[in-house]
Amino acid sequence: MTDQDETQRGLRADAERNRDRIANAARAAFRELGADAPTKEIAKRAGVGTATLYRRFPTREDLLVHVFADRLTGCESSVHAALADSDPWRGLVEHVNHLAHLQLEDRAFTAVFLHDFPADSPVGRSRVEAGEALRQLIDAAKATGDLRQDVDENDVMLLLKANDGVLRWADDPARESGRLVERFLRSLHA
Amino acid sequence: MTDQDETQRGLRADAERNRDRIANAARAAFRELGADAPTKEIAKRAGVGTATLYRRFPTREDLLVHVFADRLTGCESSVHAALADSDPWRGLVEHVNHLAHLQLEDRAFTAVFLHDFPADSPVGRSRVEAGEALRQLIDAAKATGDLRQDVDENDVMLLLKANDGVLRWADDPARESGRLVERFLRSLHA
Repeated sequence: MTDQDETQRGLRADAERNRDRIANAARAAFRELGADAPTKEIAKRAGVGTATLYRRFPTREDLLVHVFADRLTGCESSVHAALADSDPWRGLVEHVNHLAHLQLEDRAFTAVFLHDFPADSPVGRSRVEAGEALRQLIDAAKATGDLRQDVDENDVMLLLKANDGVLRWADDPARESGRLVERFLRSLHA
Repeated sequence: MTDQDETQRGLRADAERNRDRIANAARAAFRELGADAPTKEIAKRAGVGTATLYRRFPTREDLLVHVFADRLTGCESSVHAALADSDPWRGLVEHVNHLAHLQLEDRAFTAVFLHDFPADSPVGRSRVEAGEALRQLIDAAKATGDLRQDVDENDVMLLLKANDGVLRWADDPARESGRLVERFLRSLHA
């Protein structure tokens, strides 16, 4: 290996280390402060300058997607799995419980989930697909007569917003969130 | 009037002015930052020292009660009015809508409403009474067969927590909050 190769390798390793440190700091900051945690604060926690942060993650979306990639993918597979269930109402109940559980596990998830990703970004595109799958699921559950006719995808968003409030104020988040989801789903059942 | 009288009057007027300035600053800070808005921030906005603030309002409760006196009294008259309704379910629906509307008008209200006031304070005592009235209202609505047997006063608290989340995230707070209340009440109806 030449000296130049070694220098290159060292620089790549540094870049990777910085990237990981920024991602870890961002994860913690999002959890504590929400998805709009200040960039300056994230850089400070990571021990890097904001210029370095912007070089690694040019936009807020880049950082959100990097940190929450698994969960965003998880939401989408959840709605597709629900749509594949032979009982659409059961699929819907499981999907909604899955989303509420992700919120319980990580308070920053609500902000990411409700974030408007640009429609031409990879996350934006798979969001559009997931939205389409959710609408199909809702239609299928109406067709079996399980879901009330006045329900639409906004009810799922509404429940996620409501659940965030419950998680913020609850003495016992798991129990109270479970009760909200149960109450809410009951009101959607025909 | 003697000079001493005039001096006394001037001091009283100063004290009153400070009190009003602190209350106005606190109202704005509670609205923006919630019921745990830092005392230092409130004093700064009021243009007084924290020592002056503490002299006028020795505890956080004193300040909350002063700022929200009307609304706290309003909640209590609301539950008593509901209890006087010949149709307890209708009374409950009106009471819950009234609380949700107070939240819509003033985002800090949730924090005040959910705040644990000392049981031996005037607000704490009227809270205990209002809680008792709410339980009676719930029992009465169960007795007429309108309210499900699995409902209790925690459902009202749960809805207020949920509504706070909706108000935080909603694109259209009035509409989305109304939808949540409607959905939730439907799930409580027998």
